[in-house]
Amino acid sequence: MNDSEGKIELKSTKVLGDFPGHALPAVFFFILGLWWGTKSILKYTCKKHKRTCYLDSKALFHRVETFEGIILVSSIGLLVMGAWFADKESPLIRLLRWHHVTMYFFFGLLGIATILCVTFSSLPVSLNKLMLSNAFFVEAFIFFNHTHGREILDVFVHQLLVFVAFVTGLLAFLEVLIRNNVLLELLRSSLILLQGNWFLQIAFVLYPPGGGPPWDLRDHNNIMFLSVCFCWHYALACIIIGVDYAFVVRLVKSRLKRLCSSEVGLLKNVQRENESEEEM
Amino acid sequence: MNDSEGKIELKSTKVLGDFPGHALPAVFFFILGLWWGTKSILKYTCKKHKRTCYLDSKALFHRVETFEGIILVSSIGLLVMGAWFADKESPLIRLLRWHHVTMYFFFGLLGIATILCVTFSSLPVSLNKLMLSNAFFVEAFIFFNHTHGREILDVFVHQLLVFVAFVTGLLAFLEVLIRNNVLLELLRSSLILLQGNWFLQIAFVLYPPGGGPPWDLRDHNNIMFLSVCFCWHYALACIIIGVDYAFVVRLVKSRLKRLCSSEVGLLKNVQRENESEEEM
Amino acid sequence: MNDSEGKIELKSTKVLGDFPGHALPAVFFFILGLWWGTKSILKYTCKKHKRTCYLDSKALFHRVETFEGIILVSSIGLLVMGAWFADKESPLIRLLRWHHVTMYFFFGLLGIATILCVTFSSLPVSLNKLMLSNAFFVEAFIFFNHTHGREILDVFVHQLLVFVAFVTGLLAFLEVLIRNNVLLELLRSSLILLQGNWFLQIAFVLYPPGGGPPWDLRDHNNIMFLSVCFCWHYALACIIIGVDYAFVVRLVKSRLKRLCSSEVGLLKNVQRENESEEEM
Amino acid sequence: MNDSEGKIELKSTKVLGDFPGHALPAVFFFILGLWWGTKSILKYTCKKHKRTCYLDSKALFHRVETFEGIILVSSIGLLVMGAWFADKESPLIRLLRWHHVTMYFFFGLLGIATILCVTFSSLPVSLNKLMLSNAFFVEAFIFFNHTHGREILDVFVHQLLVFVAFVTGLLAFLEVLIRNNVLLELLRSSLILLQGNWFLQIAFVLYPPGGGPPWDLRDHNNIMFLSVCFCWHYALACIIIGVDYAFVVRLVKSRLKRLCSSEVGLLKNVQRENESEEEM
Repeated sequence: MNDSEGKIELKSTKVLGDFPGHALPAVFFFILGLWWGTKSILKYTCKKHKRTCYLDSKALFHRVETFEGIILVSSIGLLVMGAWFADKESPLIRLLRWHHVTMYFFFGLLGIATILCVTFSSLPVSLNKLMLSNAFFVEAFIFFNHTHGREILDVFVHQLLVFVAFVTGLLAFLEVLIRNNVLLELLRSSLILLQGNWFLQIAFVLYPPGGGPPWDLRDHNNIMFLSVCFCWHYALACIIIGVDYAFVVRLVKSRLKRLCSSEVGLLKNVQRENESEEEM
Repeated sequence: MNDSEGKIELKSTKVLGDFPGHALPAVFFFILGLWWGTKSILKYTCKKHKRTCYLDSKALFHRVETFEGIILVSSIGLLVMGAWFADKESPLIRLLRWHHVTMYFFFGLLGIATILCVTFSSLPVSLNKLMLSNAFFVEAFIFFNHTHGREILDVFVHQLLVFVAFVTGLLAFLEVLIRNNVLLELLRSSLILLQGNWFLQIAFVLYPPGGGPPWDLRDHNNIMFLSVCFCWHYALACIIIGVDYAFVVRLVKSRLKRLCSSEVGLLKNVQRENESEEEM
Repeated sequence: MNDSEGKIELKSTKVLGDFPGHALPAVFFFILGLWWGTKSILKYTCKKHKRTCYLDSKALFHRVETFEGIILVSSIGLLVMGAWFADKESPLIRLLRWHHVTMYFFFGLLGIATILCVTFSSLPVSLNKLMLSNAFFVEAFIFFNHTHGREILDVFVHQLLVFVAFVTGLLAFLEVLIRNNVLLELLRSSLILLQGNWFLQIAFVLYPPGGGPPWDLRDHNNIMFLSVCFCWHYALACIIIGVDYAFVVRLVKSRLKRLCSSEVGLLKNVQRENESEEEM
Repeated sequence: MNDSEGKIELKSTKVLGDFPGHALPAVFFFILGLWWGTKSILKYTCKKHKRTCYLDSKALFHRVETFEGIILVSSIGLLVMGAWFADKESPLIRLLRWHHVTMYFFFGLLGIATILCVTFSSLPVSLNKLMLSNAFFVEAFIFFNHTHGREILDVFVHQLLVFVAFVTGLLAFLEVLIRNNVLLELLRSSLILLQGNWFLQIAFVLYPPGGGPPWDLRDHNNIMFLSVCFCWHYALACIIIGVDYAFVVRLVKSRLKRLCSSEVGLLKNVQRENESEEEM
């Protein structure tokens, strides 16, 4: 659940089970990124084919978003409970735990906003995205004030988290202003994937599993190496989103072919123009 | 009226009555944030219901804005007068007082611009928002140059003020370019609320009332604690705006029901589309 | 012509005539800001009255812009010549002179772009603004690398120049993307005015005329005082633009009344809507 | 291929042949900038003349872009291979080589995205630009973490690369949101040209060819001199793009005159309005 414990223990040379504490958010963000990416692609592809084949996608998306909100709120609730009832060894650890609870809380607010947006039509539609950007900005802010007095490598890997969270928040805010731009949504999804991957990388760097030799946290060459790693993680995230895109588009097309086999041929010419209008 | 005095006195270990000096702007910004938030929600809700039920809202809003401008100018005038005729103990305090007068002056300009905008139709309509962004940018600039040579915690809490004021200014500037986006307005209002809350927090941190034990201004753990506090203040501001939203929407709907009880049923379907046009 | 000389002389305690070297750009930017502000207001007001009274304003504006470009190029040419043929005492001064020539050169490019834009219709219309933003960005970049090894007050006043030039460049770039927004143009004009005023302030701070006592360049209180001054200079610039606005609008209206006395009455209601379209 | 080697050798006072290692990317970026600039101007001019004379430009541009993508991918492949099979003297050099491979990889991704965009119509059209912005952001990020422990001048020239790459990435990202704005495209091209020129300048500064006397890497005056150089390189890039513009427009016009000699006269008046629509 939190990275601070491990660090403290490193200092006191007692290794607590902190690898899962970083692997958990890694899995959380990875699933979130993949899911939002898939949803964006699906929405985009459905919209492009809307004119010819009728798919009752709007109601479906509403139900999916409600479900998403509920999952988000309940999983966040569990995490907060977990953090709350854990034993608080020292004042510093209790403080750092508060950092994590705060971050979780804002993701919980996002879940609540998602549910409210679908339920009440009187709310502005982009409220969702605004709370998303809030959640990431708060995450960036907290991590920025989280690493005082640690080793340079530890600070560096967390500052990269700050960087990713900040850029993701900025993109989400841009989506408040510019709606339905599929590229922005995919970029945001790939950054969330990247954040997941990077959490896992941090876990492997700070708490090498299997009793492997620890990294030298003061060596600047390790920073240079990890900055390359970061870029490759990003490349990986881009490629995952790309493969996802190809897969979803193929799936939608093959399903549409069965539904309305004759109209697909006429569709091809309309697509490009559609696109220009939507992204403008 | 100003935070500098207290600090100086802390050094000379003589505690002057500076708690109200921070509580006053706290109240000022809190009322401002709540009022602007309510106005935005009211405007947004009225606009959505405009098509079916006639409400003479435009003239009303003009009158309200004139009133707002007059209140703003006169209250600022009082504050400036207060700062002007206070006894100036040392050159440094006199200098810091000038800092405050400058900030007040730009909020006064905002009040004047509000009145002028309503009075003369030849002025650009967003002038209002431009002066608002000016006022916050100037506040950020002044506070940025305000805390030289103080303790790290004192600097930290003021730098957070700089941060909030800067982001508020940025949002107000965005509103000059993108008008009538209710989410931007609510975000701005919640940041102004946050600023009010934060001023109060600063008052409690730097000048603990009731003779409580003072905070250790050099302890870095306090910074980490206050950065969590800041996030929770923000969460509180968001929730206040949310409750306000629910309250105002319910009020407008119940009043409309009385005015035009039959048309409300037809209205529901139109809302969503209206929304998309307005926020795009 | 350049601020470096005076600084060097301060060190060698020999005071060269450098006050005019800062007063010249002050006058240059002041006139530029006032002129561009007036032009923007005139354009905006003429556009608003376009529908009812025919004014052959387009051809007039073209001629005026050609004239503006020629004036700009020739005055820049003179400044560059002056810098070129001045006696170069030391390598450092020769280097700093190159800094100034570079800045002038980009303002010269702006003048050429202005002339070309009016002459050739095949050029994009916003080229003008792009070169303007370039000129200010280059100025900011140069001043940023200009003040190595000087006293803190000297650095501070120049960093404020960097700040103003950077923001002006940003606004001009925004105008490339969002055209005909009168508020952006007026804001830019007021920042150019501010830059002019600030150059004059720098001259008075670094080279007090009339043999007055010099400022203590190492005292941090002076920084705090000058940051207040900066805000008041900005307030002054805003007020100058405001007075200019009132003056120009009154002038245009009185002239229109003579030209087409009957239609002005009908015009009033159209104005507000016009405005909304233009600024959106 | 990489700047690190030369630096290492400078320390060990053994001069390796690293001048070509910086000249190669210089040539690469110079050609890229010139080519993209020319393509933008051609597209813009063709669009303006579209209404009167039919030119089958769309199919042509598609073919050209496929070709461009293939060239890009294959040249990047060669560079990566070259870096891969070079002898790796020390761990640090191997690490720095990884930095370069990473940068090349993202430009390779850009090439692949270009090909995919043209081939599959189901992809968003701006994907191209998004990958371009990614490539430049990654370049900026890598160079930012590339120069640890070097001399100030070495750091300075590389930080300017970071700066240019970052701004180019930002512009490319802006093009994702605002399409078909010729000025943005030309500005981006000129910045890429500038990057090419600057790589060459770095080569001349760090590894003076012909056994010339090396620069003093610790002298701050050199920084001030190079910051002027940087501006002049930018001025040069602007002028190159300007000359290119004049050349291409003249070429297109003369070719159009032959194709449809009668309609050109009528065209002139339409141009300006066309322009306003496109850039708005």
